[in-house]
Amino acid sequence: MTRMYRPDLHPATFVGGATGAWKIESVRAVTGDGLPLVERLDVRVAADGVDAAGAWILRGVAGHERYVERAEHDRLKATSPALGRAEATCAALVPIRKSPAWWALSQDERRGIFEGRSRHISDSMPYLPRVARRLYHARELGEPFDFLTWFEFAPEHAQAFEDLVGMLRGREEWSFVDREVDIRLSR
Amino acid sequence: MTRMYRPDLHPATFVGGATGAWKIESVRAVTGDGLPLVERLDVRVAADGVDAAGAWILRGVAGHERYVERAEHDRLKATSPALGRAEATCAALVPIRKSPAWWALSQDERRGIFEGRSRHISDSMPYLPRVARRLYHARELGEPFDFLTWFEFAPEHAQAFEDLVGMLRGREEWSFVDREVDIRLSR
Repeated sequence: MTRMYRPDLHPATFVGGATGAWKIESVRAVTGDGLPLVERLDVRVAADGVDAAGAWILRGVAGHERYVERAEHDRLKATSPALGRAEATCAALVPIRKSPAWWALSQDERRGIFEGRSRHISDSMPYLPRVARRLYHARELGEPFDFLTWFEFAPEHAQAFEDLVGMLRGREEWSFVDREVDIRLSR
Repeated sequence: MTRMYRPDLHPATFVGGATGAWKIESVRAVTGDGLPLVERLDVRVAADGVDAAGAWILRGVAGHERYVERAEHDRLKATSPALGRAEATCAALVPIRKSPAWWALSQDERRGIFEGRSRHISDSMPYLPRVARRLYHARELGEPFDFLTWFEFAPEHAQAFEDLVGMLRGREEWSFVDREVDIRLSR
């Protein structure tokens, strides 16, 4: 079936296997089932019809923001770096799934946990522009994960990245994460 | 590719063609390009891999609410009827697409237009339980529409349904709709 993605959507297919621009350094099951360790990751700009033979294939589509308010958006935009910086030779792909309890919450309750109590946006800002990030949505695609977050950073900011993911994992929002895999990469 | 939808998601494929449980009474282009008039509509419980020969095929996935707050959710749940009522022999399928300007808004701005100024939720409530409704999301699926809304009602509530869609179309939220088709059905 042909899919026509509009310019403000960014489909991606992450193919873990024997080929691709990124070398996979580690695959760690943080919560729930992991994924097989493979050699390389190939990132394709398409969410469907990818002719790929990989040990695993994860699809997502990046698009509009779900919780960010205008003032936050403007602050994020001013400090968020682009993907693909020459010095950002380290990357992480973190697929997560949130529990049915999370998805049964209403928008105001999810926002209250996400930012009101977990400060996901405001406490991530100090890590910008060291860490570049793109959030892919996968839930409505029938994928095993709800979100695939892709991070890029230079080797000298590897500790800052650890601090960022450690901070997020310690917050109330993360109590709703029922599957998480942490994949580290380099190129 | 195999898609595994979790129980709180409802994938659907709407196949317009020569077969299906629903007779198509009319297809009207409200804004932008329409869709070909065909005889019947087949509604399949799947968002992918549908082996169907139709003049048009529209896919969507119903899931969690995007703008509804807890108090509104509880009021809606108390009065929203199920789909498939025996007396609800009339239906409408209304695919819409919203403009890039809508999707560039932040969550608080979209909520402000959707409910704060257009009262989409509160002014729809008086039409419950006469009109049953399910909203399918299609944007991240690479579909030509962002949303497919499915409505079911008894013949004696046809005017109430006209009033409901007329009200929604007159509100500020609808100024962001850049394509809309109105498909009426019976069984």
